[in-house]
Amino acid sequence: MPSELDRSTRLVSTGDLTFDTEVSDAWGISGIPNGGYLLALGATALGQVLSHADPLTVTAHFARPSRPGPGQIVCEVIKAGRTQSMGVARLLQDGKERFRVTGTFTDLSALRGPSNEAPGKPPPIPPIERCQAAVAAPPGSTFGDRVELRFVPGTTHFATGERGDMVLGGWIRLADGREPDPLSLLLLADAWPPPALNGVDERVWVPTLELTVHVRRRPSPGWVRAWFRTRYLIDGTLEEDGELWDARGNLVALSRQMARVSTA
Amino acid sequence: MPSELDRSTRLVSTGDLTFDTEVSDAWGISGIPNGGYLLALGATALGQVLSHADPLTVTAHFARPSRPGPGQIVCEVIKAGRTQSMGVARLLQDGKERFRVTGTFTDLSALRGPSNEAPGKPPPIPPIERCQAAVAAPPGSTFGDRVELRFVPGTTHFATGERGDMVLGGWIRLADGREPDPLSLLLLADAWPPPALNGVDERVWVPTLELTVHVRRRPSPGWVRAWFRTRYLIDGTLEEDGELWDARGNLVALSRQMARVSTA
Repeated sequence: MPSELDRSTRLVSTGDLTFDTEVSDAWGISGIPNGGYLLALGATALGQVLSHADPLTVTAHFARPSRPGPGQIVCEVIKAGRTQSMGVARLLQDGKERFRVTGTFTDLSALRGPSNEAPGKPPPIPPIERCQAAVAAPPGSTFGDRVELRFVPGTTHFATGERGDMVLGGWIRLADGREPDPLSLLLLADAWPPPALNGVDERVWVPTLELTVHVRRRPSPGWVRAWFRTRYLIDGTLEEDGELWDARGNLVALSRQMARVSTA
Repeated sequence: MPSELDRSTRLVSTGDLTFDTEVSDAWGISGIPNGGYLLALGATALGQVLSHADPLTVTAHFARPSRPGPGQIVCEVIKAGRTQSMGVARLLQDGKERFRVTGTFTDLSALRGPSNEAPGKPPPIPPIERCQAAVAAPPGSTFGDRVELRFVPGTTHFATGERGDMVLGGWIRLADGREPDPLSLLLLADAWPPPALNGVDERVWVPTLELTVHVRRRPSPGWVRAWFRTRYLIDGTLEEDGELWDARGNLVALSRQMARVSTA
């Protein structure tokens, strides 16, 4: 049986560069699909039209909220190179562009060149059995059932209405047992509660304007270590930087998004 | 007299969404224009067709090397919102797309919301009079004459053939006295020697695949403090993270690019 994520990124080809799809309600809050899920959906389409299957650097710009239900994905091939290819996937619903993914794809297994990993080890995340089970998912979330989270103890200040460092990390995996791969990393890069919640007094909403993920390695099976940090919340705008590490302790993805704090 | 950067981003409108331009040879190495300059060129076009003038988050995907000389910029408006607008600018030369900029624009002065700047102060860069004047520009560089750089002492290991931390920082300004603004920050985000040069043994070339800049504030006049770091060079692929701070000590931009080390 296919996993929930695979069902939620299913595409029906309707031409060389177009697909019909059904935006899932499984990865959202209050009917708004999550940005990481949408990035994975767009990247799935790109992986089918480009000559390389692995996302290397992909950027989603979110123009308007997507809605669960039918949509059309329209792709464009910008470049078909030997080691990299580049393209765009746009989701249209009711004739309006909801988001677009612009991406450079490659074969991650074929990359060759020097390596030098300065930090060389994952961020300070205790073993999984010493981390905390999930905090309550926000009202209206369907997302909470689809991912399992284990938080670094003492970091989820927002859950008790306190303030603290805008840093959140721990362990994450898909609840149905689907193992991580380059596509699911795109989802996992936006599946964590925003660390900015620790830095504001009110209950807020943090919609993503733009999300970029660099996939750096094919992940090994198992839990993924996640580390998210916001350093600069300025007049309601923030960056959120993420690192994902696989079960073997290798860095597998870096993410950065720009989001706006909203009280609406 | 207009500044060199303003001359190098001059556009002649040829339609609602199209411009003729002349890609400058003033910001390149061995005839290849710099990615930050090209990002500024694309963003200049977007600022003219969108309803907001300031880049907030802009991403350039570089498909093929651009060439000094004539080109056409073709724009598309994705969204014209009240507080943000979104669009794409593509450079065509000889009928081929060289790069595209996808961006969300806003009015930086009109942003409102909570602030929380955790680090709150610039990276450890000594006063400018204690920093070092520019190292020798690489052969074929026209860039070196257009920007003034002052390096943190003891960090430019690459210049003497040594290895060291993949961190480089200091002070930067445009040599002709043009003061920083949101557009020039896009150039400054890619105007520093790559810190990855400190982490490899050979003389290498580090072409950018994708460059994203978040402009967070309108910069004050004067020198800009710059801090660039590569943490993960993996099989020849690297991320380069940048911070730009203005003369008043405020963070004004964050950048991240993905690049590939090349010995060619």
